Amino acid sequence: MVPVRSDAFDESDALRRNSLHDRAYSRPRGKNAPLKTMKTPATAPILRIVPVKSLKHPDVRAITSREPSPSPEITETVKAILADIKSKGHAAALAYARKHDGLKGPMAVSQADIKAKAAKLDPKVKKAIRGAIANVRRFHSLQQEKSWSFKGRDGETLGQIIRPLRRVGVYVPGGAGTYPSTLIMNAVPAQVAGVREIAVVTPAPGGIHPSIAFALQELGIKEAYRIGGAQAVAMLAYGTAKVERVDKIVGPGNVFATLAKKEVFGTVDIDMIAGPSEILVLADDSADPDWVAADLLSQAEHGSGYEAAICITTSAKAARWIADCVAQQVEASPKRAILEKSLRNFGRIYLVPDWNLGCALADAIAPEHLEIITRNPDALSARIRNAGAIFLGPYSSEPVGDYFAGPNHVLPTNGSARFFSPLGTYDFYKRTSLIRYSPQAMKKHGPLIAALADEEGFIHHAQAVRKRL
Amino acid sequence: MVPVRSDAFDESDALRRNSLHDRAYSRPRGKNAPLKTMKTPATAPILRIVPVKSLKHPDVRAITSREPSPSPEITETVKAILADIKSKGHAAALAYARKHDGLKGPMAVSQADIKAKAAKLDPKVKKAIRGAIANVRRFHSLQQEKSWSFKGRDGETLGQIIRPLRRVGVYVPGGAGTYPSTLIMNAVPAQVAGVREIAVVTPAPGGIHPSIAFALQELGIKEAYRIGGAQAVAMLAYGTAKVERVDKIVGPGNVFATLAKKEVFGTVDIDMIAGPSEILVLADDSADPDWVAADLLSQAEHGSGYEAAICITTSAKAARWIADCVAQQVEASPKRAILEKSLRNFGRIYLVPDWNLGCALADAIAPEHLEIITRNPDALSARIRNAGAIFLGPYSSEPVGDYFAGPNHVLPTNGSARFFSPLGTYDFYKRTSLIRYSPQAMKKHGPLIAALADEEGFIHHAQAVRKRL
Repeated sequence: MVPVRSDAFDESDALRRNSLHDRAYSRPRGKNAPLKTMKTPATAPILRIVPVKSLKHPDVRAITSREPSPSPEITETVKAILADIKSKGHAAALAYARKHDGLKGPMAVSQADIKAKAAKLDPKVKKAIRGAIANVRRFHSLQQEKSWSFKGRDGETLGQIIRPLRRVGVYVPGGAGTYPSTLIMNAVPAQVAGVREIAVVTPAPGGIHPSIAFALQELGIKEAYRIGGAQAVAMLAYGTAKVERVDKIVGPGNVFATLAKKEVFGTVDIDMIAGPSEILVLADDSADPDWVAADLLSQAEHGSGYEAAICITTSAKAARWIADCVAQQVEASPKRAILEKSLRNFGRIYLVPDWNLGCALADAIAPEHLEIITRNPDALSARIRNAGAIFLGPYSSEPVGDYFAGPNHVLPTNGSARFFSPLGTYDFYKRTSLIRYSPQAMKKHGPLIAALADEEGFIHHAQAVRKRL
Repeated sequence: MVPVRSDAFDESDALRRNSLHDRAYSRPRGKNAPLKTMKTPATAPILRIVPVKSLKHPDVRAITSREPSPSPEITETVKAILADIKSKGHAAALAYARKHDGLKGPMAVSQADIKAKAAKLDPKVKKAIRGAIANVRRFHSLQQEKSWSFKGRDGETLGQIIRPLRRVGVYVPGGAGTYPSTLIMNAVPAQVAGVREIAVVTPAPGGIHPSIAFALQELGIKEAYRIGGAQAVAMLAYGTAKVERVDKIVGPGNVFATLAKKEVFGTVDIDMIAGPSEILVLADDSADPDWVAADLLSQAEHGSGYEAAICITTSAKAARWIADCVAQQVEASPKRAILEKSLRNFGRIYLVPDWNLGCALADAIAPEHLEIITRNPDALSARIRNAGAIFLGPYSSEPVGDYFAGPNHVLPTNGSARFFSPLGTYDFYKRTSLIRYSPQAMKKHGPLIAALADEEGFIHHAQAVRKRL
């Protein structure tokens, strides 16, 4: 979600003209603002159309391993910050916040400040935040779990105690933008799991933004600190005299925060490591190309240059229409340079002979967001194994899930949907197994247990059992 | 579970005589082989009795941060092996197995070999393995989950698809010992989740052991390779021409395998990083000290010197009895040197004034295994938040859970029970969110969604929504 480095990938190949794009063509009657018949643009298309006939196409690997490694210097800086705050405590955390985040004034956000800032927010955005919180809460409440146990036939009791984590840190990125949705998506599942203490960290040198203040207020979170980067992560992981350590840190950050999270993993738990965003749209010629193009751009606008915006289609016509709509929307966008960079790097339209290959290709890419805008989206959805979230049909535009619908927007990137899951309520529980053996169960099974321990050479395991027989 | 390095901790303090141990005392009538009245041993006690009056006692930190860091040389070796196998494939994996594991003959284990070896196993161990598999399967089947979805009031459908991982690698340590219980505890939850493909790796230069062969047969696992260390992890994570890559690698290994798992995390998923084993026993004077001592020794025998074996008691008498039983059992053990090393490093009896502090201390240590052998174990259990597994009452000796009862023996170590959970069926699922927005839902909520996107500065997110209004 946040770039790691943006200078390591240069795909000159993207400048090659794609032959499929060579002909003039017309656009079908879509719902919205139909394009006029266009001539082939004089320059190379921003979004290349690439015919793919096999899963071995080299692009698949390029897409799923596109995140660059951070430089050794950054890694060293992060380690130094962590070590410093671990040994020197709060004063060091504060000093780094002043130095790197530009913090002025106190680090802890006061209740008065939250109240005053929240009051300033546009009522429409307030309503949107309230709606989003309600929806996210509802969805995640369906992921709640309860402790259980059962009694076995020899009188033994076995079970699992499922408890919320006690204290969680939420990192809300700051700097250029303000991201109340990040706060909502990370804090609500924790609250639904029953986490009592949530500490929010966010780099906000000029004071927290009204939207963050309002979200904090609505969520009932009273503990927030204006600090970001590795210093925020160190403060949460190790604790200081003024801020108690947490059990888990969630939320995306800049490269420093991300590396710091990796380093403290084990000292605390962390959520997944978020990479640059991805969208993959399966579209046929029933899809409005203008909508598909807009959805592709919604991921390309993040600004790292590493976002992947991919369309897979079986229709050469649809491919051309979509490429054209992308060109038009990019042309008209105030974010043109940002969009072009991402799209030329990792934007593609893959033209496949059939949906067998199309679905297999989507599965190999294992996208964070998968939209299916075809005549029968369910049929294709049933064939997809690997995706963070699936958006079915023309009205399920990806931002619906980013902001509002209820499912989490923290999703696996970089092909990791093969094995990772969206952030959920389940991420804020911890489990403890429960075993109560009865004298009868020990008498009956003890000899077998001791035999297994002996087989593994653990004679004192065996002895602990035999003493009870 | 497997040592990382065993030369980094030397606690000369353990040699100091503990004053509480100074008096002669007698042992109560326990169920088993009562000790005779003993005089104070002439040498320092193996298990020190340490009066603890506050949570700030320095031992707490020593126990929860006792795992040493691997040397930079080992880290470099591991990185080189991973890079080599990633680029050169199967031939490199095979070469490392020959070099480091001492492999002779083929790496893949044949069905004929499994069958022949399995037939050789002692019938009693066969019965024990069958029983363990049945119990572990039953317990983990209670952790099964199913996909779900619901329809919202504006016609939108939201849900979560829960699917098993497709292919999982299980690392079974080899070398000195043979660990069928590791295979069972790691493979059964995967099978219960529905994982179809399981590839087992284990360093077994002289051929796989009958107990492993029999467990493979009982579990219906046909894919096994004689390879260990970083080379096994690399082969599973990257795949080779002969062995397909997996989605997740589980199971404890030596320092090379452990470091390799950390390195490939993200390319595949991994289970937790297993540290040296821990047992903490809460005991009062109703506990048979001979049993408590045996349970403490069952963890100390693992052999790394980093195992923690701790007893917390409110009874000075119990403390002395237990220390004495430990001394006697160590004296009589063929593993005396191994036991002494662990116990002098990280073996302790903490004498606390009351169970308030006792439970708080247990919580701060957050042990892998917690036994409660007191008059009212449930009352104490209810006050513990952090533990991998809790064993209640005198008959729930820790090996019961290691081998047979049903709950998993892969448990969080080194204080990470604060936030990590036992390995479970839940670790072999992955989830995909499902969003199908209706035209009506888009019409009603679209303006709010676009407002939130605008608030965050994501104009193309907003545009993707507004095009549909």
